[in-house]
Order: sequence, then structure tokens, then C-alpha cells
Amino acid sequence: MLKFALFGAGRIGAMHAANIAANPHAQLAWVFDVNKDAAEKVASRHGAQVAPGIEAALADASVGAVLIASSTDTHVPLITAAAKAGKAILCEKPIDLDIQKVEQCRKDIAGTNVPVQIGFNRRYDATHRAVQQAVARGEIGTLEVLIITSRDPELAPMPILKSSGGIFRDMTIHDFDLARFILGEEPVEVSATGSVKVDPIVATLNDYDTVMVTMKAKSGALVHINNSRRCVYGYDQRVEAFGSKGMVQSDNPMPNMLRRSGAGMTQALSGLHYFFIERYMQAYLDELNEFIDRTNRGLPPTVDFEDGRKALIIADAAFESIRSGEAVSVNYG
Amino acid sequence: MLKFALFGAGRIGAMHAANIAANPHAQLAWVFDVNKDAAEKVASRHGAQVAPGIEAALADASVGAVLIASSTDTHVPLITAAAKAGKAILCEKPIDLDIQKVEQCRKDIAGTNVPVQIGFNRRYDATHRAVQQAVARGEIGTLEVLIITSRDPELAPMPILKSSGGIFRDMTIHDFDLARFILGEEPVEVSATGSVKVDPIVATLNDYDTVMVTMKAKSGALVHINNSRRCVYGYDQRVEAFGSKGMVQSDNPMPNMLRRSGAGMTQALSGLHYFFIERYMQAYLDELNEFIDRTNRGLPPTVDFEDGRKALIIADAAFESIRSGEAVSVNYG
Amino acid sequence: MLKFALFGAGRIGAMHAANIAANPHAQLAWVFDVNKDAAEKVASRHGAQVAPGIEAALADASVGAVLIASSTDTHVPLITAAAKAGKAILCEKPIDLDIQKVEQCRKDIAGTNVPVQIGFNRRYDATHRAVQQAVARGEIGTLEVLIITSRDPELAPMPILKSSGGIFRDMTIHDFDLARFILGEEPVEVSATGSVKVDPIVATLNDYDTVMVTMKAKSGALVHINNSRRCVYGYDQRVEAFGSKGMVQSDNPMPNMLRRSGAGMTQALSGLHYFFIERYMQAYLDELNEFIDRTNRGLPPTVDFEDGRKALIIADAAFESIRSGEAVSVNYG
Amino acid sequence: MLKFALFGAGRIGAMHAANIAANPHAQLAWVFDVNKDAAEKVASRHGAQVAPGIEAALADASVGAVLIASSTDTHVPLITAAAKAGKAILCEKPIDLDIQKVEQCRKDIAGTNVPVQIGFNRRYDATHRAVQQAVARGEIGTLEVLIITSRDPELAPMPILKSSGGIFRDMTIHDFDLARFILGEEPVEVSATGSVKVDPIVATLNDYDTVMVTMKAKSGALVHINNSRRCVYGYDQRVEAFGSKGMVQSDNPMPNMLRRSGAGMTQALSGLHYFFIERYMQAYLDELNEFIDRTNRGLPPTVDFEDGRKALIIADAAFESIRSGEAVSVNYG
Repeated sequence: MLKFALFGAGRIGAMHAANIAANPHAQLAWVFDVNKDAAEKVASRHGAQVAPGIEAALADASVGAVLIASSTDTHVPLITAAAKAGKAILCEKPIDLDIQKVEQCRKDIAGTNVPVQIGFNRRYDATHRAVQQAVARGEIGTLEVLIITSRDPELAPMPILKSSGGIFRDMTIHDFDLARFILGEEPVEVSATGSVKVDPIVATLNDYDTVMVTMKAKSGALVHINNSRRCVYGYDQRVEAFGSKGMVQSDNPMPNMLRRSGAGMTQALSGLHYFFIERYMQAYLDELNEFIDRTNRGLPPTVDFEDGRKALIIADAAFESIRSGEAVSVNYG
Repeated sequence: MLKFALFGAGRIGAMHAANIAANPHAQLAWVFDVNKDAAEKVASRHGAQVAPGIEAALADASVGAVLIASSTDTHVPLITAAAKAGKAILCEKPIDLDIQKVEQCRKDIAGTNVPVQIGFNRRYDATHRAVQQAVARGEIGTLEVLIITSRDPELAPMPILKSSGGIFRDMTIHDFDLARFILGEEPVEVSATGSVKVDPIVATLNDYDTVMVTMKAKSGALVHINNSRRCVYGYDQRVEAFGSKGMVQSDNPMPNMLRRSGAGMTQALSGLHYFFIERYMQAYLDELNEFIDRTNRGLPPTVDFEDGRKALIIADAAFESIRSGEAVSVNYG
Repeated sequence: MLKFALFGAGRIGAMHAANIAANPHAQLAWVFDVNKDAAEKVASRHGAQVAPGIEAALADASVGAVLIASSTDTHVPLITAAAKAGKAILCEKPIDLDIQKVEQCRKDIAGTNVPVQIGFNRRYDATHRAVQQAVARGEIGTLEVLIITSRDPELAPMPILKSSGGIFRDMTIHDFDLARFILGEEPVEVSATGSVKVDPIVATLNDYDTVMVTMKAKSGALVHINNSRRCVYGYDQRVEAFGSKGMVQSDNPMPNMLRRSGAGMTQALSGLHYFFIERYMQAYLDELNEFIDRTNRGLPPTVDFEDGRKALIIADAAFESIRSGEAVSVNYG
Repeated sequence: MLKFALFGAGRIGAMHAANIAANPHAQLAWVFDVNKDAAEKVASRHGAQVAPGIEAALADASVGAVLIASSTDTHVPLITAAAKAGKAILCEKPIDLDIQKVEQCRKDIAGTNVPVQIGFNRRYDATHRAVQQAVARGEIGTLEVLIITSRDPELAPMPILKSSGGIFRDMTIHDFDLARFILGEEPVEVSATGSVKVDPIVATLNDYDTVMVTMKAKSGALVHINNSRRCVYGYDQRVEAFGSKGMVQSDNPMPNMLRRSGAGMTQALSGLHYFFIERYMQAYLDELNEFIDRTNRGLPPTVDFEDGRKALIIADAAFESIRSGEAVSVNYG
């Protein structure tokens, strides 16, 4: 039985709390949030205690794991504190928006030897994972071309955009991780370009809402990523892996499989799932269950701190490229 | 909070138990099964008591509902007893294989005014339901043609086949109900034909493993159902509704959306879900949640005893037709 | 070089004339039509002569083949005359609407030993043919279930309907032939049901516009056919063959492969081809080219008089069944 | 009636000859090829004369049009000669591999005022064209993202590769043109990257067999192109146009619409068409027919010399980018 302290009781935190409660080998013990009402609501629903601060929860020796779902700027201090308290950690992505803070955190937790898993939920999506597995077992021969399409349904509200660190650190970072996951090797070169097409307000933030990124891996495999911050037919998340012996594609799972035919139209499917909570509901569950299972068995996480750090390094390189107009070599340090 | 007594703790019963436990407005109080170990396993997992017999559970005034997931021959006595004890009932299909027993049960529970819901799970499948809703709101104009394809992955074991009541009462009965659900009116004529193609053993039971049924509704709408007891690519469940203004189809939901392309082949999807538990997992959950919600709100079930009875009447007519070679008028009494 | 006399210069005849002209091993020599203008138009376009009557064309010793695309009631006399003149014959379906006339024709041409091919164009459709080939080479194991969906875009005009011989002899006859083609054996039992849903005028002709037919073959394989005389999304022609090792389906080829996604809708394809001329354009060409090739090489046709006769016998059995409400044994004589 | 001289009687030339012969408003008068046998074969099949040289054909005042399907290095001299002779010209792409020669040709034919159409066949593909039309009429709102996937079935033989001008001038040039066609505006910036994954021999030519190109248009619309010189499942040609109101995609048309389902696999389609001749057969026909129709009506071509020139300018910019690692501004002069 793995007892959890949950830090952050917003929408994602509440979802994780329910997933913890549904796992017979885990239990939600503590909930902390700066918004006390939110913490109380989640705690009472699952029979947990509200923590007055993180210290109380970390001091509880029966707590084996911390789930961090609070705002991004709190991730590094919470990871550091939890690691020093010897707790296994599952932290929502990104580790931080500033690579310097991430490097410092890395040093600070070195030697604690606690498992630190980063919440790259897409690795747990059944179809994305099936792509990775097909590639890994050589089903398409040598992987040569990887194409990731990722479009959000609509622009996030201004405050979120402002503190997002920019599209590459906030949105594309998932695709950078997914690319690393499927490639099975590191991208060594990145070039990026972008536009403001969705809303002119994005330009005032020196950000982009429509971007394309090209990466090259050491093997010569090429990766394309395209992102848009608005997509009227839903949350569009597709992957195509092409190689010497064939291709596998991760098509969008549908809310239902109804096909409509009428005058001038046949086989129309419905719109896609609205956004990540709907689309990746099962992936979030599988991610957490794996974390619980591996932690209970003393195994390290499959998506770890280094994965979070490397995805951010690629995001930084993408920003460097989009500003310089040049391909940028990625240096993982 | 609706407290449940569960009668039957086999595979389906265990699944229902977990679904009850997951609903915040319900609670599993009692479990009874002739197999005491099974009952204990389910009860202990969800904090319920094992009932020494059904009487103890029915005598518990705090129990508001009974879920019947025991063998078919026990359904009628359990429905009758539970109804007389004033409990709301959710009973797996079919009510019974013998229409005389069903009619007797109907008389016996008349006046008890308890909600009796029959477990026609397919009505709760998101896509089948979307077909029904599209038809009901006139999206395809007048419904004229309804085609239901329903294929099991493999033949049930001999003991189950022997006590199944024959393919129409055991397997097609789901399709009869689905047809009634989508038609929004009663079939008035049935003709059926069948073969033994999967396994010659089926012929020794005077049964069929491959059948086709044609029905006509009062409006003249035509229905085709085809069943097979073996399907190598999985549990194939499709519906097509065609009308004056178009068509809607319920395509199979997939375990994942991976598409494979290789030499001589493109866009191959995986095999289908193996069987009904995998395919209708969410439908079972939605079915139970609706029952809990409506019972808690004092509303009658949307799929009731009459639905179970009428589906059996159609199944009997199909057997009459397959033996006589004639179209049979359906008499609902 | 195979020289043709064309009897019938309407829409279908004109299409065949162009197909003859496009084949380097054939030549259009004569055109006859009771409508002289039509004959002249077709003849002049392809450098052929207008025949004052069929006799002149049949008397031309250089003519090796006759293509009959005139009205149905002229098929039998034209086949008979052409066969007696020793010409190879390609005749549009059906041979006749009256099985007595077909039997008489059969006797009259017995011993002439001329190739007589009946224009069941669907056998030449690339995808339907791929279904037949997959079944024939055992790709789906034993064929157990065959489902044919065939829907016309709209009701034919009254004069055509009146002289059509009824839906089974006019429309379903194509599906009967396709079923025989794919089954590789004869249907031995037929039952049929139908409604008037498209237009009440059809009832005044004692005909049906919406029908379902079930057939059983000697092996026990079951066949379902459904027809509608109106389909708002185009000419819907699908085949599904299911067997012990899998399934093959003939999906509709599309005018183009554009997929549309917008608010609430994804992956919509366009409407289907409007009708048989558009849908089976290539099939008509392949049918003719095979006839030319086999005739030039002295080989008999692959779709012959017996195929035309047997399809009509099944259609008659379907009418007997729809009126009696009983399954009817098919007697091929 | 438009009389043609055909220069080049290889595979593509022979196909064009047959297409000319099939058009009732055109006629093949002369055929010239350095390979006299090839010229004779094509000429005799369609009743044309073999020209001893191009001069004889150009001197024939009855000739209104020249179709150039000879080797790339002859395009510029043939265009120039034909233009000076006042003939309408349909020339296979590319105009030349050397932009200097193209600029010189442009000057040389300035003032001749003959129609010069370049053979960008993909613009005539029904589905690609449907994408362009949907975009042009605003169906997807503002076009923001355009993704073109284009994969050849296998590497061309060494001699062809050697004289191809490199992948961007030989293969991607089609995609550059298609992008311009759909964008409805000019790309202003190009960046490119590439690898040698198919065959190391390609590296010895300082060329690439696997490339990705990113372009930005003046409006900010982003374009991604990916090419591979080998694709085991056939000739893969897809386009995706995404905008503020939705998406349209050009999916691959199939040789047939057979769908296979078996153990572990459902709905598999066949491999794609083998290569461009099979895939774009109808497009080649429609291209030629439009040229004939517009020339006969005195209208200029819809795909002209400037289109050929601009596509080459983009290809040159892509080579500059792939070598410098920098985004390159496109200067159309």
C-alpha cells in the first residue's frame, strides 16, 4: 500500500486523487493546496487529511509518495523537498520553465535516490504506445521519418499564456518527449519556425500560436512537429512513424464510432475529444498505476527527471532557432 | 445512497460489484452466491457482507436495490422475491428462457410497483445509443432499413450452450432488443434461417451457430440481423440505420487506433475487442449508474420487464419461423 | 480484329460503342436502333454504318459479334437471331423478364454454340472481384455469411418501373448474380420480404421499393441482400463476405478521397458516385475487353446465358416468397 | 481540332500520345524522338508521321501545339524553338535544372505570346484539386498549416539520380508547386534538412533521399513537406490543409476498396498505387484535355512558365538552406 501526499488540488490534482483512490494498492493520505477549499474538497471526497503545509505531509513517515500537481513555479522546490524527505515523486510536467533551475534541482536531489517520475501522460496513451512498441520491435524496419501533429482546441486564457514559458516549453514539450520516446535516441539538431495566426494577442507576448519544428536524430531520422493553439474539430493528436519496412500511425480515438452519411457526405465521424482530460483519461490512470506498481516493487520510473530535463533543453533550442533562423545543435550537458 | 444486495458473484457479478463501489451514490451491502468463496471474495473487496441466503439480504430494510447476476434459471424466483420485498431490481438478461415462466413472473410481481430493469447493456453503448438518438431526432428521415451484425469471438463451452435456450434466446435476444430500441416501434413479423457452420456439435443440440433473421415493423421498416458464434478478428458488433434522408452506422470501437501500412497493405487496424466484457465495459458502468440515479430519484427504469419479455417473444417467434420456413406474426399478448 | 454490330444506341449502347472503339482489337461496324437519330449519332462518331434493320448487320460475314443494348423485350429475339447467324453475343441483363421466354430462347439457340455473355457488369468491378478472388482462394476460410447492400440513388421514372418486371427481376437480379459469383455454388432456398417506403406509387404496381432477401446455399452458407430504390448519399453498393478465417468487404470507391473535418465532424468523405454509369465505368470497359479478348481467342464467356437464366429463376422464387410468406426452394430445372 | 507534334516518345510521351488520340478535338500529327524506333512505334499506333527532326514538325503550319516529353536538358531549346515557331506548348516539368537557363529561356520567348503550360500533373488530381478548391472558397477559414507527404516507391536508377539535379529539383519540385497552388500565395522563406537513409549511394552524389522542408508564406501560413525515395506500401501522396474553421485532407485513392479483417487485424486496405503513372493516370488526361480546350479557345494555360520557374527557385533555396543550416528568403526576381 503506497500512501500519497497530493500537492495541488486543482482540476488535474483532483483527477489524480480519484485515480489514487481507485487503485487498491494506494491511498490518499494528505492533500495540500494554497487554496484551502480546493484541498478540503478533494481530501473529504477520498478520506484524506488536509495538510496545513507541505511539511506536515512530508514529515509523515507512512507517506511513501508525493504527487505534485501544483503550479509550475512550485515544482522545483516541491521536488527538492520531497526528495530530501525520501518520498517517491510523480510530478506534472514541466519540471520548470527555466533550465537553470532544473539544473540546480538536479544537483540538489542528486544522491537522494528517490524515484522521480515526470507526468508525460502521452507515453501512456494506448495508441501512441503501440506506435512506440511497433517501432521498438522493428515492425517498420529502421525508423526514418516521425511526424507529430498536436493541436489544442482553443487558446488558453491570457494569465495562463503569460506564465506558460511560451509554446515550446508549454505545449510542444509533450511532443518533444513523445519524439524522444518513439525515436529511442536523442534529437541532435532542431530548427523551428512559427506564426501568430490564432490571436494577435499572442504576438504581444513574443510568443507563437502556430509552429513547426524539424529535428534530426543522430541516426539521421527526421522529425516534424506541428502545433496549433486552436482546432475547431477538437483536440487533434496524431503520430506517424515511417520506416524502411512500413508505417504505423496513431489516429485519434473517437468519443464514439458513429458514422454519418447524408446528401453529399459519407462516413463522417464526430468531432474529436474536447481536450487532454477527455482524450488522455485512461493514459493518466495508466501512468499513475504504473508509478504505484513500480514504486511498490522498488523499481525506478520509466519516465524520469532526465526526460523532463531533456525535453526542456530541446524546447530552449527551438526558441533559439525560431529567433535566429538557424538550425541549432542540441547540447544535453 | 442506494444500498445493494448482489445475487451472483461470478465474472459479471464481480464487475457489477466494482461498478457499484465506484458510484458515490451507491454502496454494496450484501453478496450472495451458491459458491461461497466467490461471494466472499467479492464482498471482502468492497466491504460488503456475505449473505447466508437471499432472505437475510432482502430482510435488510436499508437495502434499496438488488442486482441479479446469477444463472438464468434463478432470475424469475429472485425477481419475484425481491419485488415482493419492495427492492428495486436490476437483472441480467434474459428474464428466463421460458415465456410461460416470464408471464407467470409478470403476474406475480404486478402491483409491487418496484422498478425492474433488464440488463440490455448495448442500449448504453455510446455509439449504438448515438444511432438511436440520431434516428429518434429524425436525422435520417424515416427509418426504413436496420441492419445489425453481431458475432461472438468463439463458441461458448458445451454446458453453457446446452442450457442457453438456443441462439435466438441467448445471443440474438440482444439484437432483438437493440432493434426495438432503435425502431421505436414493435416488429410485427419475423422470419429466420440458420446453419451449423462453426461446429457440428451445435447440430446435436438442435441449435444453429450461424443465423439470419428478417423482421418487419408496423411502419414497414425492415430489419436484418446476422449472427455467428465464431469470429476470428474479435467481437463484431455493428448497426446500420438507413432512412429517407441518410444513414448512420455504429462502427466497432477499437482497443487502440493504430494503423499499420506495409508491403501490400495499408491502414490496417488491430483486431476488435475480444468479447462483451471488454467491448461493453463502459456501457455496463453507464447502465448501472443510470439505474442508481433513476432509482434514487424515484424514476422508473428506461429498459424494463416488458422489454425483457418482448425480446423473448420475438426469439420464440424466430424459432417458430426457422422450423416452419414461414414468416411468423409476432403476438405480444 | 472483332467487328461488332451494336443493337441499341441509347445511353448504355453509346457507352459500349465508345468502349469498342477504344479497344485496338475491335471495331464498330454497324449500329441499329429503332430511333434512327440515335443510331446515326453513335455510328458517325465511331465511323460505323447505320443498319436499316438487324438483318443487314447479321448478314455481314465480317461481323463477328453483336452487342445487344436495346430494350429488354427485344433481347430474346435478338439473341436468337444473332445466335442463328453465328455471331458472338454480349447482351445486357436481363435476358428477359419471363422465364418461359428465356427457356424457349435457350432451346432455340441450343446447338448454335455461339458465345453468349450476359452483361452482369458488377462481376468486373475491381473490388467486388477482389472479394470473389479472396473467397475463391480461401483467404477467409469457408464462406459462411454473405451480405450485399445495393441502393439506387432514386426511383426510376414510372414508365421504366412499369415495364421493369418488378424490383427482383430488375434490380436485385444483379445481386443474385453477384451472390452466385462469390458463393461459387447455387442458392437452394430463398425468402423475401419488402415494403413500399420510397413512393406510394410503387404499391399501385404491386411492387416494392425496399426489400430484403435471405438465401441459403447447399453448403449452408447464408446470404442477405437489401435493396432500396432511393439513397440520398448516392449509389451504395457494398459486399461483405464472412468466413471461418476472416472477412473481406467491398467498400464503395469514391469520386475523390477528400476528407473534411470541421466543428463537430471529422473525416467526412464526399457523397458516392451518382449511379451505375459513374460507378461501374471501368467495369463496363473491363467486361467488354474480356469479351473481345476471349471471343478473339475462341474462348467461351465467363458470364453466360445460364448465369442470366439462373438469376431470373432466383428472382421468380423471391417473388413467390414475398407473396406467400414462405421460404421457397429454388429449382434450376 | 488541335494538331500536335510530340517531342519525346518514351513512357510518358507514349501516354500523352494516347491521351491526345482519345480527345476528339485533337490529333497527333508528328512524333520525334532521338530513338527512332520509339518514335515510329508511337506514330504508327496513332496514325502520325515520324519527324526526321523537330524542324519538320515546327515548319508544319497546321500544327498548333507541341508536347515536350523528352529529357530535361532538351526542354529549354525545345520550348524556345516551339515558341518562336508560334506553337502552343505543353512541357513536362521541370523547365530545366539550372535557373540561369530558365531565366534565359524566359527572355528568349518573351514577346512570342504563345501559351506555355508546365506539366505539374498533381494540380489535376481530383482530390488534391478538391483541397485547393475547398481552401480557395474559404471552407476551412484562413489557411494556416499545409502538410504535404510525398514518397516514391523506390529509388530511381543511378543514371537518372545522377542527372536529376538533386531531390529538391527532381522530386520536391512537385510539392513546391502543389504548395503554391493550394496556398494561393508565394512562400517567402524556406528551410530544409535531409538524410541519406534509403541507400548510401545517394550520399556519393551529395544528395539526400529523405528530406523535410518548412516554408513560410507572406500571410504567416506554414508549410511542411516530407519526402522519401522509398516506400514499401506504394506511392504515398497526401495533403493536409488546416485552417481557422477546419481541415481538409487529400487521402490516397486506392487501386480497389477491398477491406480485409482476420486474426488480429481489421479493415486493412490494399497497398497504394505503385507509382505516378498509375496514380495520376486520370490527372494526366485531365491536364492534357484542359490544355487542348483552353488552347482551342484561345485561353492561356492555368499552370504556366512562371509556375515552373518559381518552383525551381524554391528548390534552389531549399538546397541553399540544407547546406547552410539557415532559413533562406526566397527571391523570385
